[in-house]
Amino acid sequence: MKNDINDMPEPFGRVTHTADEWVMARIVQKFGGTSVGDVDRIKNVALKVKAEVDRGNEVAVVLSAMSGETNRLVDLVSQMAPLYDAREYDVVVATGEQVTVGLLALALQDLGVSARSWLGWQIAIETDDVHGKARIENIVADELVKRMASGEVPVVAGFQGVAPNHRITTLGRGGSDTSAVALAAAVGADRCDIYTDVDGVYTTDPRIVSKARKIDRITYEEMLEMASLGAKVLQTRAVEMAMKTGQRIQVLSSFEDKPGTLVVDEDEIVEKELVSGIAYSRDEAKITLVRVSDKPGVAAAIFGPLSDANVNVDMIVQNRSVGGDATDMTFTVAQDDLDRAVETIENLSADIGYEKLLSDANVVKVSVVGVGMRSHAGVAQRMFAALAEKGINIQVISTSEIKVSVLIDEEYTELALRALHTAYGLDAT
Amino acid sequence: MKNDINDMPEPFGRVTHTADEWVMARIVQKFGGTSVGDVDRIKNVALKVKAEVDRGNEVAVVLSAMSGETNRLVDLVSQMAPLYDAREYDVVVATGEQVTVGLLALALQDLGVSARSWLGWQIAIETDDVHGKARIENIVADELVKRMASGEVPVVAGFQGVAPNHRITTLGRGGSDTSAVALAAAVGADRCDIYTDVDGVYTTDPRIVSKARKIDRITYEEMLEMASLGAKVLQTRAVEMAMKTGQRIQVLSSFEDKPGTLVVDEDEIVEKELVSGIAYSRDEAKITLVRVSDKPGVAAAIFGPLSDANVNVDMIVQNRSVGGDATDMTFTVAQDDLDRAVETIENLSADIGYEKLLSDANVVKVSVVGVGMRSHAGVAQRMFAALAEKGINIQVISTSEIKVSVLIDEEYTELALRALHTAYGLDAT
Repeated sequence: MKNDINDMPEPFGRVTHTADEWVMARIVQKFGGTSVGDVDRIKNVALKVKAEVDRGNEVAVVLSAMSGETNRLVDLVSQMAPLYDAREYDVVVATGEQVTVGLLALALQDLGVSARSWLGWQIAIETDDVHGKARIENIVADELVKRMASGEVPVVAGFQGVAPNHRITTLGRGGSDTSAVALAAAVGADRCDIYTDVDGVYTTDPRIVSKARKIDRITYEEMLEMASLGAKVLQTRAVEMAMKTGQRIQVLSSFEDKPGTLVVDEDEIVEKELVSGIAYSRDEAKITLVRVSDKPGVAAAIFGPLSDANVNVDMIVQNRSVGGDATDMTFTVAQDDLDRAVETIENLSADIGYEKLLSDANVVKVSVVGVGMRSHAGVAQRMFAALAEKGINIQVISTSEIKVSVLIDEEYTELALRALHTAYGLDAT
Repeated sequence: MKNDINDMPEPFGRVTHTADEWVMARIVQKFGGTSVGDVDRIKNVALKVKAEVDRGNEVAVVLSAMSGETNRLVDLVSQMAPLYDAREYDVVVATGEQVTVGLLALALQDLGVSARSWLGWQIAIETDDVHGKARIENIVADELVKRMASGEVPVVAGFQGVAPNHRITTLGRGGSDTSAVALAAAVGADRCDIYTDVDGVYTTDPRIVSKARKIDRITYEEMLEMASLGAKVLQTRAVEMAMKTGQRIQVLSSFEDKPGTLVVDEDEIVEKELVSGIAYSRDEAKITLVRVSDKPGVAAAIFGPLSDANVNVDMIVQNRSVGGDATDMTFTVAQDDLDRAVETIENLSADIGYEKLLSDANVVKVSVVGVGMRSHAGVAQRMFAALAEKGINIQVISTSEIKVSVLIDEEYTELALRALHTAYGLDAT
């Protein structure tokens, strides 16, 4: 059997099998807010679940709240008390998922599929007591596994759990992805299918690069880099949890009936691309301190106070001026943090000693991501050459094991993405 | 101390006390849907709770869902599956109260009042497993009592409980009143205050009779008759539970700051009125079977099949025709049941044997209610005389120990109510 998702029969579980030897798979399906946005969409979800059941698979479902509902509930909480008790926030906000699981269980029953809803405390999905952003510590899955084996579909409320003192917790925004991956790991699922409003992970933003291709398989590490760089298809925590537990994830569309992108271990990908995708983030701002006195401890004097002010610093470069005792220090922060960062630095100007502070929010970070670059030299060089050829000036460079990022003027974003997409051979043919 | 609510200092608990000897009371406050209809109203409820706490009382609160919310949720369920699983209905519909208890706990904390929300399963409010209309079997109140004693206000979700198998149950529409009375009994409350959008129970409908008076004290039995006759201030089941447990209830307004109506044991009312109030119900329809053959078993032949068809028959009269072997049979049903009742009877016409069937939906049932009539003759006679004086024809009469009901033509409703209100000396001076 070839290791190509398009050649594999449904289901493409962990178990090796051929087309004429049918093997049942255990699958967790997760549907996000837009997929359960109204009555008709929930009925559509029920059809997707039924299709998987009809293939002979064991299925559990994890749901988000109807789109807009969580925002409505959070808004009610904020109106009630500006500084709210996160325990009561959780009580209110967790109702969104409680509604959708009840409704989907009804829709499934109406199609003749045996189903029941499960709330976090009923399973139980045990979390710590950090209300509003709790972490799942354990899922008691025995009863669910038993019921799945008997043909019943558990419909599980995502985003919620229960703290040791029996109060309701929520996992933080987007936490339903994490619920789904954790549940998949707990029931030993062959695959965790994350249904969303896009049909997979793309080599880059298809709204900008028309030749962008859907990626068939991507590693956890690449997915993490893509997600943290602004390709918001999967929650970062969900990918981290999948990586830790070795849980295979598929990202696919609720509205189309075709395979999506599989997120898997590196060893499941035979032909590794040098570069899997080009990500970008516009949420960047650059600060340059000109002629900082070049003495030990100056970096700590700058970045310590920024950290205390809760400013996350991303890229950092330091250029020693030739023949001098001063250096230029450049770093990037999120755009929302720019004003706070500038204010923090200016308050420290006497301690640090710099000639002037320059800031620029018209920058974008573009990154090439790929596990293949671990074993290949020249990946960064190809990036620099492609950008130079288009006359794009690189302001800051940073690299990690599986990615190279550059900061460039924001107005070159589209040009850079298209040039790099072509340079790494990612264009659809 | 006089036994008059208006002369009593707050709180008027069970414990006998004078104005200068302060005695703490334990109070359960229940607020209905309109009282928690939006953010501002919930903040207003928080002020009412705080006022009771500031008086030195121990307080627990029971809430309904925001007005309209339960209907919205029920509608979602109905759209999802016409014949729905009541267990999933309960999961969905119980979220309404979960939202309001979280929000009120936040509003109380914002006012500096120690408070936390409690869901049915957290307390636990143990019910049977008749989903959609469960009955409370037990409330585990120890933890709540302990917290109330320590100054914390439990904010309890009304209308919901938990079944033996740990699934969420709801008590049926209006069940929050029952939750409040049950909780009050469980924590040994001195009083259960039911806040609503009217300021108490009236001698009759004040929209019709301008001289209607608010009743200071009414017995459980009278309240039951008033409620079941259409004065929908308190749920019948809540009153029954209060009567059984001896729990004192006060019905009062969320929007005004004055005493309401106390619902109490008969022995708490020293000067019993002959008649406490005049109730009426427009939801009546009359069926007359003319010249039914008068033989043993004919009543069973009519009312058995009606019962099987789930038609509730209320008043029944049978008039034997003079000198014949036939009788006229007249009875009343709810207007919604009229078509079904007529159809049921017509299908049986061969078995029963009657000359013709007459039906009339333009009727109203007017009742005088009062525990005082147990020991006084002539109450019914005064009613008949007052109606006769206004030229109102009585179609059917039925009586119980504490009420006399008559069925009259609907167009005389207002005239009859005013005449009876005056005849029994109930007019405000």
